[in-house]
This record gives sequence, structure tokens and C-alpha cells, in this order.
Amino acid sequence: MANRKVSPNLDLNNDVAERRTRGESIVHLAFGEARLPVHPALKGQLAASSGENAYGAVPGGRAVRREAAGYFSRRNLPTEPEQVVVAPGSKPLLMAVQFVVPGDLVIPKPAWNTYKPQGLLAGKQVYEVDIPAECGGVPDPVKLRETVRAARAAGGNPRLVVLTLPDNPTGTVVSPELVREICAVAEEEDLYLISDEIYRDVVHDPATPVLSPAEVLPERTIVTNGLSKTLALGGWRIGVARFPDSTWGNSVRDGVISLASEVWSTLAIPMQEVAAYAFSEPPEVRDRFARSARLHGAVARAVYRIMIGAGATCRPPTGGFYVYPDFEPKRAVLEAKGITDAQSLFRYLFDEFGIVVLAGDNLGDDAGALRFKAATSLLYGHTREEQQLALDSEDPLSLPHIRDVLTRIEEAFSKLVG
Amino acid sequence: MANRKVSPNLDLNNDVAERRTRGESIVHLAFGEARLPVHPALKGQLAASSGENAYGAVPGGRAVRREAAGYFSRRNLPTEPEQVVVAPGSKPLLMAVQFVVPGDLVIPKPAWNTYKPQGLLAGKQVYEVDIPAECGGVPDPVKLRETVRAARAAGGNPRLVVLTLPDNPTGTVVSPELVREICAVAEEEDLYLISDEIYRDVVHDPATPVLSPAEVLPERTIVTNGLSKTLALGGWRIGVARFPDSTWGNSVRDGVISLASEVWSTLAIPMQEVAAYAFSEPPEVRDRFARSARLHGAVARAVYRIMIGAGATCRPPTGGFYVYPDFEPKRAVLEAKGITDAQSLFRYLFDEFGIVVLAGDNLGDDAGALRFKAATSLLYGHTREEQQLALDSEDPLSLPHIRDVLTRIEEAFSKLVG
Repeated sequence: MANRKVSPNLDLNNDVAERRTRGESIVHLAFGEARLPVHPALKGQLAASSGENAYGAVPGGRAVRREAAGYFSRRNLPTEPEQVVVAPGSKPLLMAVQFVVPGDLVIPKPAWNTYKPQGLLAGKQVYEVDIPAECGGVPDPVKLRETVRAARAAGGNPRLVVLTLPDNPTGTVVSPELVREICAVAEEEDLYLISDEIYRDVVHDPATPVLSPAEVLPERTIVTNGLSKTLALGGWRIGVARFPDSTWGNSVRDGVISLASEVWSTLAIPMQEVAAYAFSEPPEVRDRFARSARLHGAVARAVYRIMIGAGATCRPPTGGFYVYPDFEPKRAVLEAKGITDAQSLFRYLFDEFGIVVLAGDNLGDDAGALRFKAATSLLYGHTREEQQLALDSEDPLSLPHIRDVLTRIEEAFSKLVG
Repeated sequence: MANRKVSPNLDLNNDVAERRTRGESIVHLAFGEARLPVHPALKGQLAASSGENAYGAVPGGRAVRREAAGYFSRRNLPTEPEQVVVAPGSKPLLMAVQFVVPGDLVIPKPAWNTYKPQGLLAGKQVYEVDIPAECGGVPDPVKLRETVRAARAAGGNPRLVVLTLPDNPTGTVVSPELVREICAVAEEEDLYLISDEIYRDVVHDPATPVLSPAEVLPERTIVTNGLSKTLALGGWRIGVARFPDSTWGNSVRDGVISLASEVWSTLAIPMQEVAAYAFSEPPEVRDRFARSARLHGAVARAVYRIMIGAGATCRPPTGGFYVYPDFEPKRAVLEAKGITDAQSLFRYLFDEFGIVVLAGDNLGDDAGALRFKAATSLLYGHTREEQQLALDSEDPLSLPHIRDVLTRIEEAFSKLVG
């Protein structure tokens, strides 16, 4: 730990800041932030809670645990308040679970770039298993079984698998069939699951079926969630975990609460009040979920079409606000421009077009693959007014400020492969 | 980590809640919360920041880092914004430093009960060194040297020492002379220091000299602080660390930022805005510091006098809001009541008088010693109005609601030793 490096993202942000200072216009797609205004009701709730300053209970107060339990229960996961722990973001909860649950970690490849460092911090081996062709956020079930058996044969102890539903970085929602297959492997191989469902309410089409592994394997699945993505509250750091109502679940929850008491105490009380309100899902919050999902879907699909149009393969986005194209079909054309891997593709897009993406290898993907993640949630405008317009529009792609940036991206990718 | 227990404090809180439900009046002195209202200016600041929802920079934004640098600079620690990192409480910062700095840990005995579990979490050996007769928060310098040398001779690697100025649990401020002695040992023995100064602005008498080890050993001392105690914002979770302006300091800071990016991302942005405002120390904040310190001092000294009156020995409180009496002089009397150690003393006070203290062994002290910590900051009243009265009074001991509870404590301790 002594010589940990500053994340490469920070260097990148410095580069971006420098070029912006020189007056360049940069299209920054490398950061998973839902760039939308705070809903006025949430602002009001925070202000109304500004007199609350007591430390409060480590796992969160009664109100927020009860409302979060209701939130989960309305999503086919019957939940008692005692199964819920809130925290300053879902990151600390994910980390605490890794410290508390013994054994090694399995994550999808590619995956959100925090699971692996957390696993290493908790002293775990981290096994990365390829995602299937149809979606991300889950390891291919056949490869999962192979990896676990091979690892055990070699003396390893894989025990905990992280799934991301809907997925960051691929922007896809895993099918219920595939969830069942993974759960079958998990049960057979005595694995436990963390289902990171922070994009749970960013499913573009309400008709898309979403099956949480906690519905299939309730005794073995911990669910994490938060308000950063669905309510655009990344900067408020509100996360939640739901532990199984089982002996194992209670023991992990108690371990997480114990660790929380030593590391972060609790979620700030005014934020707990905001969370209690949001998890109660009054009409204005449900309306906001719906508008956000519509907007995220429309813009993600537009960028998807641009990628396909430029000759990439790409899983169609169905949840979250990302696309994860693969420019392998254009390797020959790109090679002629000196682009031979994820980093040189990223660098070319940045240098030539001022477009910043996250290279696939930063997400655990093969360094040689011509893949990257683009967060399309940063395209809704630079001002609160533009963002609000985008949120309220039934056809956000028709808004000039969104059309303009999509055109710029389209032109850039057309040149890239031209 | 798999079988961590829920902290005994939680069991205690359940007991307290149960007895309160039965209508019993409990005097809870076992929790280090400054029970005072939020200053209206801070409430306004939180409300005014309710539109801020971007993730922001991991170590904190420019404004809060600049203002915190100013805060430290005004306390004889010239500081650049780059030396500052904010976080959701000082706990995560203390933990991150333990993960980033290699080597084992030395803490005072007794000490705040979070340093040791954090050290163990970070895989460290934890050495506990007796505090001197005159104050707490620091190991006795002679014993510190002995412990370090003996540990090294036995193959250990003590490298990091935590000091608490002013101290929790003893409520004392270490003298500048003693700080210099400890710093001399630290330099000689190649030790690094964490100076936990979260009670920095709760020094009862403004004339009391306070010397931070960061003034003596600037290249080797990390300072942590926060708003939980001085501005009674425990439930808002606002902490700050100041890293040395040295190669070592930069490297630890970068490691902490890297770890923060994987574990908690950043301090919630509305809380950063509150912190920027508070650290800028406008007149109303300075006035609040002064009123709080006056109140904390008056009540801590009153409880100290009760302990002395009951025959205990006790270091006179000079900072923070604790007393840490030792009933050794009354051992014979107490033994006749079945009180033979810290736990039985704690239990007797709870069962017989409904007075809850924190037994010394929970703070790393000898289990056989008749010592406990009492947080006197919980005696300012049950309502915001009572608390505000206490804060505004030039003679808080004359207020009926404070006089009453002090009388109850006095009667209890008189019976205890009677």
C-alpha cells in the first residue's frame, strides 16, 4: 500500500483541464456522472434537515432503513428494515463486504474499475471472467464455473462474485435466464453474490424484465444501491446495502456495521433524511426516475448508433448510461493511423478530436482490444437549464445543444474510421 | 474479519433504550457527542448548497482546501491547499493513513477506541503505551522509547504514533514541553506522528498553550481535524487531514487520495461547502468556538469536582469535554459493594443510578483499574432550547436543568463511595 499511485484518471483530468484552459472544447465521456440538476424536492429535503446534527445509529436511522426496505420490497425483494444499512455511497459498503466475507473475488471482465482495487485492499485474489456476447455485468456462466474450479484446483479460494445490474461499463441489462444460470453455478459452487444495482432505476424501456439474483438466491445475495445515478446525486454520497435474511446475511451485516463504526460512523444525518424521502418514492421521485431513464436511453442509443455507423460492434444499451463499442472490425484502418490497442485508441480520440473516453484496459479488459467506455450522461448540456430541458423533453435528440454534440461525435468517429 | 462482533456499545445502547422505554431517567455519559444545536449560519450554508450534486475532486474542491489551509495556517501551521484532504469524517482519513503508511502502530493507553481496531484492520501490530501522570493523549516519552526499542528487538516494526490533542478520553491538553519530548523521541527513533486535533478548538482557557507536534516535526506529522466536536456537527461527518509539505507527506497524501477514490470518493459536496465556510472562520464561527469552549469547560470542571469530592483522583480537564477519574483510592469501599474492576464499576453506576459511563477497559486501559470516561457534553439539556441557553449563558452551572443533573450525579457518586 505504501507506494500506491494516483489514479491515471486524475492525470487525465489535469490534461483535460489544461486543454480547456487553452480554450479547447473537450467532449468528456470518461466519467460516470448523471449530469442533471437536483430535483427541487430533494433540495428542499436537504434544507429541511439542516438542524439534524446528532451522530445517529451506525447502520442508519429507523426512517431511512424502513423506507429503503420498502423500496426493495416494491422490487420483488421483501425486506425488513433490519436488513438495510446506509452509508456515504455504496463504495464503502462494497469495500466493507469484501473485508467481512472471507475468500477471493470474481468479477466480470470488463467491470467498473473499483471492484478490483477494493478486493486487493481486502487482501483478496481477484479473478476476472469474460462477460458473455449478449451483455455485460456478469461473468459468462460456463467460464465462471471453469474459473472457479481451476482456481480451487490451484489452491485459490474464490467465494464472492460481483454482478452489476444494469451494467457499468456496457450499458446492458442481463436477461433473467442468464441470471438464473449464474445463480445455479453460484449455488453449485458455494459462491456468494454481490449484486450492484446502483443503475436499477435506469432501465431504458420499462418493459425490460429485470431479475435480481437476490430473487433467485435470496440467502446468498447482497444487493447494493444508491441515489448517485438514478437521482443524479453523485456528490451527495448516499449508498445502501440489503443483506439476506439468513444466518449468513445477518453475520455479514453485523460485520459491516462493526467495520462501519470504525471507518465512517454513519451516513450524514441530513443525507439520511434525503434518502428516506427518496426511497419512499413519492410521485415526483417516480416521475424523475421515468424522465431520467427516458433521457439516458435516448442519448445512449444515439451514441450507440454512431458507433455502429462507424463500423464498431456494440451491445445495444438497455440500462445505465454507457456504451462500450469494439472497433475490432476496423482494426486495419485504425492500424494505419497508429491505433493498435485500447490506450492508443483512447489517446487518438483525445488528441485528434478532443473526445475523452475510458480505455477498456482501465476496466480490466484486454489491453490489445479496441474497446472503450463512453458515459453518455455527460451530453445533456453545460448549464442546469440545458440539462432540465433535456430531462423534460419527450425528444431530447431534437434539442439543438444535444444535436450539436452528437453531430460532433458522429463527425469525429466518421473521420476516425475514414 | 469474518466473525467481527457488534460493538459492546450497541448492546449498551439497547439496554439504555429499553430502560428509557420503561420510563426510567438515564444519564448517558458514554458517548462523545457535543450535544448542541447547529449554528443557524451553518444550517443556511447547507441549504444554500443543496443544488450542488457533482462528484467533485477526491481530496475536496478548491474552496474547502483553501479555507482549511487558512484554518491550519492561523494555528501556526503554514499550509498550502494541496496539503489538505477532506473526507466524510476524520475516521476514514485516520484509517487511510494506517493503510498507506507501512509499519506498526503505537497509541496512548487509554485512547479513543477507534485507533486500535483501525490499526488491526490495516494489518498492524498495535502497541499501547501508558500516558504520563499529568495528561493523556500522548504516550509517556520514556516508555515510548522503551516500547519501540523492545518491540524492534523482538522483530516488530513500530513506525506510526497517534497523539490526541486535546485528549479524548482524559479531557486534558498536553503541555508544549511534553510535545517536544515526544517529538524528540520520534525523531531519534524514526517514528511518524498522527496528531488527532479534532478537539483543537475546545480548549477551555484561551490562555492554555497548545503546541501541535506538526510545529515541532513538520515533516513527520499528519494532523487530522473536523467539525464534529468544535461545531457540534458529528452527524454531518466532516473531517480533514493536513499532510506534511515533504516528500514523505506528498507520498502519503497521494496514497490516501488513491485509497479515498476507491473507498469513499469524496466528502459530500454540500458538506464541503459547509466546511469551506466554517474553516474560513467568520466572526459568528469564532464566537461559537468561544461559547462552546466556555460551556464545555464549565461543565467538565463541575463533573471533575464531583469526582474529586467522591474521593477519586482525576486529571483536571483543560480541553475537550471528558473527565477520566480513577477510583483506586476508594477500592476498599467499592469492593464491599462488589465493585472490583472497570466493568463492575460501570455496571454498578448503570444499575444503581442509571448513570452510563464508558469503562476504561473499552479504551484500552487495564481491566482491573477503577477508571471510566464520562462525556460531560451530554449534560446541556434535552431540548434545543435548553442547549442554546447553556451555550449563551455566562454561568451555565446556574441554569436549573444543568444544576439538576449535576446534583443527581453528585448524589449518586456520594452514595457510591458512602
